Amino acid sequence: MLKTPYLLFLGDAKDALAAKVAQGIRDWRPDNAVGQMRLAGCVADLGIPDMTIEESMAQGARTMVVGVANRGGFIAEEWINVLEQALEAGMDLAAGLHNKLADVPRLADTAARLGRELHDVRHPTQAYPVGSGAKRSGKRLLPVGTDCSCGKMYTALAIEKEMRARGWKADFRATGQTGILITGEGVSIDAVVSDFISGAVETLAPANDADHWDLVEGQGSLYHPAYAGVTLGLIHGAQADALVLCHEPTRSHMRALPEYPVPDMGAVMEMALPHARLTNPDAHFVGVAVNTKTLDDAAAERFLKETEDRFGLPTVDPVRTGVGRIVDGLA
Amino acid sequence: MLKTPYLLFLGDAKDALAAKVAQGIRDWRPDNAVGQMRLAGCVADLGIPDMTIEESMAQGARTMVVGVANRGGFIAEEWINVLEQALEAGMDLAAGLHNKLADVPRLADTAARLGRELHDVRHPTQAYPVGSGAKRSGKRLLPVGTDCSCGKMYTALAIEKEMRARGWKADFRATGQTGILITGEGVSIDAVVSDFISGAVETLAPANDADHWDLVEGQGSLYHPAYAGVTLGLIHGAQADALVLCHEPTRSHMRALPEYPVPDMGAVMEMALPHARLTNPDAHFVGVAVNTKTLDDAAAERFLKETEDRFGLPTVDPVRTGVGRIVDGLA
Repeated sequence: MLKTPYLLFLGDAKDALAAKVAQGIRDWRPDNAVGQMRLAGCVADLGIPDMTIEESMAQGARTMVVGVANRGGFIAEEWINVLEQALEAGMDLAAGLHNKLADVPRLADTAARLGRELHDVRHPTQAYPVGSGAKRSGKRLLPVGTDCSCGKMYTALAIEKEMRARGWKADFRATGQTGILITGEGVSIDAVVSDFISGAVETLAPANDADHWDLVEGQGSLYHPAYAGVTLGLIHGAQADALVLCHEPTRSHMRALPEYPVPDMGAVMEMALPHARLTNPDAHFVGVAVNTKTLDDAAAERFLKETEDRFGLPTVDPVRTGVGRIVDGLA
Repeated sequence: MLKTPYLLFLGDAKDALAAKVAQGIRDWRPDNAVGQMRLAGCVADLGIPDMTIEESMAQGARTMVVGVANRGGFIAEEWINVLEQALEAGMDLAAGLHNKLADVPRLADTAARLGRELHDVRHPTQAYPVGSGAKRSGKRLLPVGTDCSCGKMYTALAIEKEMRARGWKADFRATGQTGILITGEGVSIDAVVSDFISGAVETLAPANDADHWDLVEGQGSLYHPAYAGVTLGLIHGAQADALVLCHEPTRSHMRALPEYPVPDMGAVMEMALPHARLTNPDAHFVGVAVNTKTLDDAAAERFLKETEDRFGLPTVDPVRTGVGRIVDGLA
């Protein structure tokens, strides 16, 4: 678990998208983000105060989070200087980069010398049990996507926020590095050894109060030829009562795979349901969440209505319409 | 890749089952097994010559394979003495134990000093790419099980043997530690990081001659709440043209999970086929392989006939009847 709150390091992010991890923290856990630190040339701006390491620590910051993607697979010297200063000043570091902070000798040495923690959240260090399939108390919701990157994390976070606003007991359970950095805990499920996928998810979303909801972050797609194994282990481990189909309607093919068309929404539901019912016979779809970002208002409204009519399920865009109508159905 | 042939170390195996890895090598790659080495109290016997390390090396042995399961999660001192002698004499070591040979300091030090290799085949050391889903030339067959440990490896090996006997180009592709030790190569797929399951299988069964068959070892079951993710990644990566359903008819529940009944054979086919067709639209079931070991002759014959009538597919027991009728259909 990461120590909160954070100073968000944006580096020299060339656009807002490069800083999407930091933006996610800012959007979903604003209390965790005391300030941002930007280097020369940084174009991203979270709209929170720019701070030095010392200023952020005076505001309580305990971890510097690398909220920006690195380019070219290496961590720039300029970044390392700043990260080392944060360690020296008394902060831990956290990142979800492919390369590990712990593999940078200066950072590893400094952290060891000072007793600071380096959190490479993409690389699990905990050992997980093999899945048991045993029924757990409490309720769980899992977004299931037609593809990768179609709004599953956003949907789960939006439902958590809506449930909490209604006074429900609800916790987002992160399964990817962005989600882990946002909430400060979770498991990067695609980095777990494959024998333990569902066991890791069982650990992540353990037995809870009967009226407590876990909003488990979805990953991948059953129709993605590279990642479907992760998706299925996640479905089995989540033991979801409620499934939400997530879809991006303008995408023509699976992410990074031009020869693989995005599957029909109904086909994904039909494929996912028997799998979900293996570990929870009550599993059912409770709504559809569409990412209509690239559609104009009229087209978005039309797509949502057509989808709702087709499946008879509350169909929302978490950004345009909110997820209230899905949550209504879970009361 | 392991250096062949082997001296098979049986330790103090308390029964034949404890030495099933060695028995598998003896059965399927007899040319790899120049001899066996048994300690006092060993009950297993492969029916091949007992040899000292030196005698086996005189016959060409290059690797000592631990062909026996260890008990209690540690490698006994008595074993370590023998394994160290093999290293000193000039052999590599290979094992598929949960604990690694490389984690035994005496073995690690001796191997490093002498330049020998320690193969812990349950623990992949190679990095694999993310799956591409790109169509590969050559033909592939994958056994798909109703449960774990119901005959998938045996079926694939039997089909390889039958095809080779007919002069076909055919290679068994091992995905588990026993299979790897039998053939000397492969990938322990359940130990791969989950993002790379299908990519590892794509690497294991690469593009080949149009008339070449890969017999890919199956793992787990789509109905197993702990391991289904591995199974699905394997189905996608194998890109099988031909699927064989494997079943053990007297088992009442999934292995180690009393609350999970063994699924109906037809349900497993129905679930597996759309997944297999994602990466190979031509995928279809070509037969059923039943492990009738616990049935008497009449009951076995009846079960095979009923299954054949139900699905209209050649239904065999690889041990009782051989797999010839399945291979006939692939000509």
